[in-house]
Amino acid sequence: MYTVMNRIAVDAAHAPAFETNVVHSFAPLRQVPGLYRVTLLRPTQVGQPYVSSMEWDDEAHFRAWMASPPFQDAHAPPQGQLRDLLGGANVVEHFETVADQRA
Amino acid sequence: MYTVMNRIAVDAAHAPAFETNVVHSFAPLRQVPGLYRVTLLRPTQVGQPYVSSMEWDDEAHFRAWMASPPFQDAHAPPQGQLRDLLGGANVVEHFETVADQRA
Repeated sequence: MYTVMNRIAVDAAHAPAFETNVVHSFAPLRQVPGLYRVTLLRPTQVGQPYVSSMEWDDEAHFRAWMASPPFQDAHAPPQGQLRDLLGGANVVEHFETVADQRA
Repeated sequence: MYTVMNRIAVDAAHAPAFETNVVHSFAPLRQVPGLYRVTLLRPTQVGQPYVSSMEWDDEAHFRAWMASPPFQDAHAPPQGQLRDLLGGANVVEHFETVADQRA
């Protein structure tokens, strides 16, 4: 399993529009091979970023998506407008799964 | 849903022992009410932390666990030794789920 987390600083005033845009952008991801979960997590403390996560079967599927037309579509406007809306810092981190235990 | 992420800086030399200890600490968490998933994610880039996540049904279950004997057990030695082993920074972040889409 391969997880890509995007840590996104969002001004409180822009948070509702940000959430709406991100949730809207999730729908087409349902069709992406090897991507089995996407989440958007809202911070509970001031100064903490939102975290948007993508959980992949493996890194190869993530790389294939990055090179695909659907990825280009997802990063054309209105995503471009979304980026303008955000303005703040945006840090992407990649992880390999060591353990994944479910109840 | 309520997610608690622990971002943990670990020296490369200590990483194998750290992973072993964390995975060992996960086993008793299977019994915790309202906790449906725990993960340990390994960084893929230098300077990036490990991320240990707990996914809860809601914040109330997390708070109940924090106040319970199993939590105290989990933070007695050898967890105390684990903390000594880590030495580095350890940042805990709490999140509310905005969206959770699965393929």
